[in-house]
Formats: sequence, C-alpha cells, structure tokens
Amino acid sequence: MPQLSELSGQMPASPIRKLVPFANAAKKRGIKVYHLNIGQPDIPTPENVLEAIRQYNEPLIAYTQSQGTESYRQGLARYYQKHGIDVTADDIIVTTGGSEALLFTVGSIANPGDEIIIPEPYYANYNSFVTLFKVKVVPVQSRIEDNFALPPVEAFEELITPRTKAILYSNPSNPTGYVYSKEEIGKLRQLALKHDIFIIADEVYREFIYGDTKHHSILHQPDMETHGIIVDSVSKRYSMCGARIGAVVSKNKELMASVLKFAQARLSPPTLGQYASEAALDTPQSYFDEVIDEYKTRRDILIEGLESIPGVKIGYPKGAFYLMAELPVDDTDRFARWLLESFSHNGETVMVAPASGFYSNPALGSKQVRIAYVLNTADLRRSVELLRMAIEQYNQEK
Amino acid sequence: MPQLSELSGQMPASPIRKLVPFANAAKKRGIKVYHLNIGQPDIPTPENVLEAIRQYNEPLIAYTQSQGTESYRQGLARYYQKHGIDVTADDIIVTTGGSEALLFTVGSIANPGDEIIIPEPYYANYNSFVTLFKVKVVPVQSRIEDNFALPPVEAFEELITPRTKAILYSNPSNPTGYVYSKEEIGKLRQLALKHDIFIIADEVYREFIYGDTKHHSILHQPDMETHGIIVDSVSKRYSMCGARIGAVVSKNKELMASVLKFAQARLSPPTLGQYASEAALDTPQSYFDEVIDEYKTRRDILIEGLESIPGVKIGYPKGAFYLMAELPVDDTDRFARWLLESFSHNGETVMVAPASGFYSNPALGSKQVRIAYVLNTADLRRSVELLRMAIEQYNQEK
Repeated sequence: MPQLSELSGQMPASPIRKLVPFANAAKKRGIKVYHLNIGQPDIPTPENVLEAIRQYNEPLIAYTQSQGTESYRQGLARYYQKHGIDVTADDIIVTTGGSEALLFTVGSIANPGDEIIIPEPYYANYNSFVTLFKVKVVPVQSRIEDNFALPPVEAFEELITPRTKAILYSNPSNPTGYVYSKEEIGKLRQLALKHDIFIIADEVYREFIYGDTKHHSILHQPDMETHGIIVDSVSKRYSMCGARIGAVVSKNKELMASVLKFAQARLSPPTLGQYASEAALDTPQSYFDEVIDEYKTRRDILIEGLESIPGVKIGYPKGAFYLMAELPVDDTDRFARWLLESFSHNGETVMVAPASGFYSNPALGSKQVRIAYVLNTADLRRSVELLRMAIEQYNQEK
Repeated sequence: MPQLSELSGQMPASPIRKLVPFANAAKKRGIKVYHLNIGQPDIPTPENVLEAIRQYNEPLIAYTQSQGTESYRQGLARYYQKHGIDVTADDIIVTTGGSEALLFTVGSIANPGDEIIIPEPYYANYNSFVTLFKVKVVPVQSRIEDNFALPPVEAFEELITPRTKAILYSNPSNPTGYVYSKEEIGKLRQLALKHDIFIIADEVYREFIYGDTKHHSILHQPDMETHGIIVDSVSKRYSMCGARIGAVVSKNKELMASVLKFAQARLSPPTLGQYASEAALDTPQSYFDEVIDEYKTRRDILIEGLESIPGVKIGYPKGAFYLMAELPVDDTDRFARWLLESFSHNGETVMVAPASGFYSNPALGSKQVRIAYVLNTADLRRSVELLRMAIEQYNQEK
C-alpha cells in the first residue's frame, strides 16, 4: 500500500487513550469502571438550552457565516462584557470547539520550528495542535508542592528565543485546577510586551472557581489588544461538550483576519450547536451557583478521601474539575493499567489518567495522576475507596 | 506586533469570497441580488430530521466517540450497503463535514511536497487543505467542449511521479456537474493499482443525478480495499449543510487508524449534528424523488435560458446542482464584480462565481463562471434574464 504521511506517524496518542481498550476489556468481564479519567461532566445541560432545541423551527439546517452567526457573536460579546472583557462581535470568531480555536490560533501565528512556552503539566491535547504545525513546545515546570502555581517569571524569560511566538496556559488549569492570579497574569503580560510575543489564554473553565478567587482574563490586562488571545468553549460552561462550539477572541485585527481564512476553509461552524449556544447565553445564575456548589462538594470529598490514603500528595485545586495527585506507586502508567487488568473489589474498579501525558518529558509525570471529579458524590467516595485499596494491594503484589 | 505565520499568508481567499463585500454593498444600496454563486440549497431539510430535533430528550449534550456514535456508524453502513458499497461501521469515521474528512485524509497520506492529481476545474476549497499540508495540486484539464468528462487516462499517467500520493475527484462534480461513468472510474482504479496511489472520491452529491446514469462509487470497483477512499457528507444530501457531519469511508485499516488519530485530536464530531444525521437515514425515497425532480426542472430552465443568450457556451451537467458556462465577456472576475457594482435592472442583479478559483491556473477560468441552480424556478428565470441583459450592457459599455 502507499506509504502514509510522516505526520500520521507523529500524531500523538495519549496515555489515556491507550488505556481505553483495557477499560473496555474490564467492562466485558462484567467489571464496573468508575471513570475518574475523563473531562466529560455528568451535570445536565441547562434546561433553557434543551428547551430551545425542542423549539427549533427553521425549515433547513443551513450553513452560517464562517465566523459564526451575527446574533450569536453579538450575544457572546455581551457575555464577555458582563465579565469585564471589553470586546465586540467583530473581535470574536466562532469555532468548532475550543480545539479548533487553538488550531486556528497556532496555525496563524507559528511557523514550523517556532516555539510556544507552556507551563507544565498541560492539557495533553495541546500536543496534537503543535504536532500538526510542527511547532516546538517549550515547557516550564510548575510543582505539586506549590499546587502548580505559575513558575517564577524568570523561568519563562530565560526560555524566550527569537523563535518564541507565544506563551500558552489554561486558566483555571486543566489538568491541575490551579487558578492564575491577576498578579501572575500581569507578569506574563509584561513579558509579552517586552518580547513582542502572544499570550494565548485557554479560559474554557472561566466559571469553575471555588472560593473567593475571581477569574482574571488575559483581556482584563491593559494593552493586550495586540498580544492577548482568548481560546474559549461552551463545552464545560454549560455541560454541552457535544455542541462543539468554541471561539477565538482577540482585538488583534490582523490575527483575526488570518483566523477567518482558516475558518472559511471549513465553511461554517455547526449550526445546531450555535443555536444551542446562543440559547445557553440566557442560562440563569442559579444554574451556575448549583453547579459550582456541586463541584465544590465533590472537590472537598475527593481531597478528604485522598488525604486519608498514606503517601498520597495532592496539588490542591481552586478551579476547573481536576486535580493532580502523586501516588505512592512505582509508575502510574503501569498502575493505571493494572487497575483495569488486575484489580477489582466487589466487581468494581476505577480508571485514572496517568500524568505522563501531561508533561513534555513523560518521566516527570510517572508518579502522578489526574483525577476528574465529574462523578456524583456517592460514586466519588466509592472511587477513592477503591483507589485506597488498590494502592495497598498493588504495592503488596510487587 | 509579532509576525504571523507564513501559512497565514498562504491560506487562499477564493475569488467568490472577494466578491462578498460588493454584494453586501449592493444590498445596502437596496439592490436585490440573486445568488447563483453559492452551494447553499434552498430545499427544506427532511421533515423527519426536523421532527427528531424537536424530540431531542437527552439530559446533556455530551461528547461522542471521536469516530462518531456506534449507532450512527451502524446506520451509515446500512446506507452504503443499500447503495452497493460493501462496508461496515468499522470502515467509517464520522467527521465534522466533508471538509474535515478531506483534511484528515490528506493529512494522513501526504507529506509536504507530495502531489495530488485533480481533474480541473475543481472545488476551490480543495486548495485550503493542500495549502495546510503544503501538498502540490497537479491539475489535469477537462474541457467544456466535452462537458468536462474525465480527460484521457494517459493525461493522468504522464503526470504520475514518485511523489504522487493520490488522484482526487468529486463525483458528481462540483463545479461542473459531470457524472463520471463506471468505465472512467475503472480506468482510474487501474492507475491506482499500477502505481500504488490512493483514489479519493468526493461523493457528497451521490444522489443528485438527473436522467438514467447510475452513480458509480470508487468502492463499487473491485480490489479497492487498500487504495479507495470515499469522502462524504450529509450537507447536500438532506439539505443540512449546517449539521457539519461528514465521513471518511475506507477499508484500509492502516489509513483509518491514522484518520482516527486526527479525529481524536478534535475530540468529537458534533453530537446534535450526528443525532440529526442518524434521523436523516430514515428519509423516505419520496423526498429524494421530489428534490431530484425539482433540481432537474431547474437545470433544464437554466440551460434553456443560457442557450438563448448569444455567445454562451455550456458544459451540460448530469448531476450535482452546478454548471460551468463560458460567457462572451473579456474577464469573468471583472464581469462578476461589475454585476454587483454597476449593473441593475428594476433594482435587481445577479451574482455568479467566476471560474478562476476553480482552476490551478486562474487564467484558464477567465471566461467561465459556475452557476448554482439552487434558486426556485421563478427566481432562476429572472436571474438568467438579468444575466442576458447584463452581458449585453457590459459589452456595450466597454
């Protein structure tokens, strides 16, 4: 057969995906698997969104403009303004999920061989976009002992080269749950202005903050018209990952003209998803209050449970719905697979995301796992109990 | 500001898009513009699809598997089997529109500098995908005098080099409306086997054939398990372009494993679109019969009207809903812009797609336009009348 492309060989398969066949095999053996490994919330989509879908009465499902419908972009602009982010519909291009927003952004700013600095651990999927454009990820390590706070700005600055195009971070962070402060983001802003590089802020978890910290956007910072770019998505905000609606938000006209060309190449973002996302803008504050309350409760249960397991170290999260934990095992890739292949208690086991996929150098994550608290509180308690028993048994068997 | 990427400068803006500001300006002046330039059908989406959307009763809009839902892929496999295409759900990966299907396919098979042979004129958007992967389009000219039939297979063969990875064609063809015969596709198959290259068949207009010709798929040909790839989409089939649901279909396991990695990078195709597309599989034959009848009527009205304009040459279409016509004007880019800027009759004008964007060498299309017959018959008659008057006036003013 004809040879496939080099890119095809390079496209990363994450350590989590490699575990999926083992999870499926466990299920075939009748084992119940608690999924602490995925970012698919179980929270219902707001009723106003579901009701709007049931009221859909267009005669045809037509293409929209490549940048998204005028009315949705107007509505989104009002949403951002409400959050103190001063943008208009012209500063927004609607994308097919946050993934595409990042794809178009990286494609617009970076040549092959260019560098993007990312505090690690970072969202494993970032590797796909940089692979596609042959961009080099330059990691800056954050540490579990600091709950994964922003590393000192000097650590960033010494990595900046003539090929550095941007600093990319997610805030609140997937996978660490860390929420960057105004001061931390202010330091990145100064770097961006001094070295003329972009700041790409993945703010898809904006609403998911527990406690008094306020979300601080890159576009809250002054003078970020040229250098600041928000990557956003409705996926987590309204528990509608399947809508596949995101956005690139920036006041940089030249950048946005480039993003639009990428957007035109795929014609139109999903029409039904945009329709649902526009309805989602009317979601009452009470929905968020309940959801945030629920996640806060889950977080606290998870932390309490993990703290009771000897040898576990926790990166305490303030946002999103993940935390990174260090486990007292030799290797979390091996342990995660063992959980699915060789462990069960009363016919149940648990699936976690080994952290190797969240680090540029997989070895750095070899003792850590990411745990998503997207299960209800009873399942979460049971999952932590399973984890506790599993760690003990795993270390005895060795 | 930081420099944008080279790719950003290279992403093509089609000649049609360049006209959009002039169309908008005309509308602002109160002029009614008949759009013969676009592929957005006015035909309603099947009622069974709209009804299914109104019945949506999932509690949340979740991610699906990256390859699409099991039930939709099973349903699609049955659809293909009904059309004599022997595939199973495992041979199908659901994509975000036909655009993404082509993107993942080209990304999987071609390195920068590799070549894909395409009979021209071809769908202008193909240029975006090849630009993204720095692949070279090698055109083979088809001629209006032959109604854009497949050029002699020798013309393909003499262009095959060690860097040739595939032959790509759309069938029925956008922009020409030509329907490739079993014999023509058989010749391409022989080339593929002899030279070990892929055949990528864009079959999104499969159902849109007028008269007795039967659609012949690349996967109807024997021994195409390794080399045959279908790129497909529900956009035109069910008049639901905005669903953004397409598919890559191939029995080549290695290729499909690669496409899946690209699919995993964007997590999930749109859930609501898949839901609507699954419902669309139950569309009764009567819907297609009516739609095909309507397009056939439109095609015949369009051809009759164009034949009555002195100096117009037509590439007679047998499928899709486009035709290419040669107009007696000096330059169709200039003429198309003039139609929007300087012409009107009783407050109305018409917009056509200059053919320069459908050729690798734009000069080859400088006398041709693509006309989409996606307007109702009354509007179509009026559009042709406007075109007739405009050609006359344009040539007098010169």
